[in-house]
Amino acid sequence: MIKFFEYNWQVRDEWFDWCSQLTIEELLKDRRSGVGSILYTLFHIIDVEYSWLRGIQGKEDVVVQFADYNTLEEVKYLSNTFRIEVAEFLKTNIDELKEKLIRVPWDDVEYTVDEIIHHIIAHEIHHIGQLSIWARELDISPVTANFIGREFKPVNSY
Amino acid sequence: MIKFFEYNWQVRDEWFDWCSQLTIEELLKDRRSGVGSILYTLFHIIDVEYSWLRGIQGKEDVVVQFADYNTLEEVKYLSNTFRIEVAEFLKTNIDELKEKLIRVPWDDVEYTVDEIIHHIIAHEIHHIGQLSIWARELDISPVTANFIGREFKPVNSY
Repeated sequence: MIKFFEYNWQVRDEWFDWCSQLTIEELLKDRRSGVGSILYTLFHIIDVEYSWLRGIQGKEDVVVQFADYNTLEEVKYLSNTFRIEVAEFLKTNIDELKEKLIRVPWDDVEYTVDEIIHHIIAHEIHHIGQLSIWARELDISPVTANFIGREFKPVNSY
Repeated sequence: MIKFFEYNWQVRDEWFDWCSQLTIEELLKDRRSGVGSILYTLFHIIDVEYSWLRGIQGKEDVVVQFADYNTLEEVKYLSNTFRIEVAEFLKTNIDELKEKLIRVPWDDVEYTVDEIIHHIIAHEIHHIGQLSIWARELDISPVTANFIGREFKPVNSY
């Protein structure tokens, strides 16, 4: 499972690089599908990963507002900052927690840690798929989504 | 990892149901992004999963042509047929094979079974994310991509 985080983070960073060729207007343009804009999609991925990971740890939810992070640099900063804390947790033995039931403030239902980890992973890959469609609509090649053929930066090195 | 297959297969079946509200023209329309059309995306997901799973097992690649499966019913049939064989393999102890190196006919590079399994999973989630954008562009709610809150049909029951 950890490899999916390493994959998602590498792909996310490649999308940040990709975004640097667009104007802020293109990044913020409401595309009327997905969660709205390219930049908000990346913000949303980061926010969701961090919130669920804090939920698993029984930590209070940190609410971040997109209005405070609506530039590419700020979203990258948010990603890098939250990732350090997420990586710290992933370095621990999460296998031992798999069956633990978690309730978070934004959902009435309890889920196991294992379900939540799967959810976070699938959530990011799904939204990145959406970015790839918008990229083609802008006539720009998207970042490759291939899992194979990559060298990952290990979670332990964050 | 098996849970991701169960998730992908449930979501795929929900997309098949979703597709039944569209005409064959809409399903086959070239959307100029992703791999082209909605139906070809589903065909491609099935083909890629099956090809890699056969590759892992050292079985000969079965080449299927979209021209022979270009209706919703035929793609569903292909999905159901291939899935039985994929499920059979997933019921075995694939953990033992994780580090085994595989070379497939359509790629020069060797990959471990573990990498290929990750690749298949991410591949489907990514393409399903693309479908969700096209759904909104058609003004129709997409199938939910949430991993949490689902009851999966176990791989063992296929």
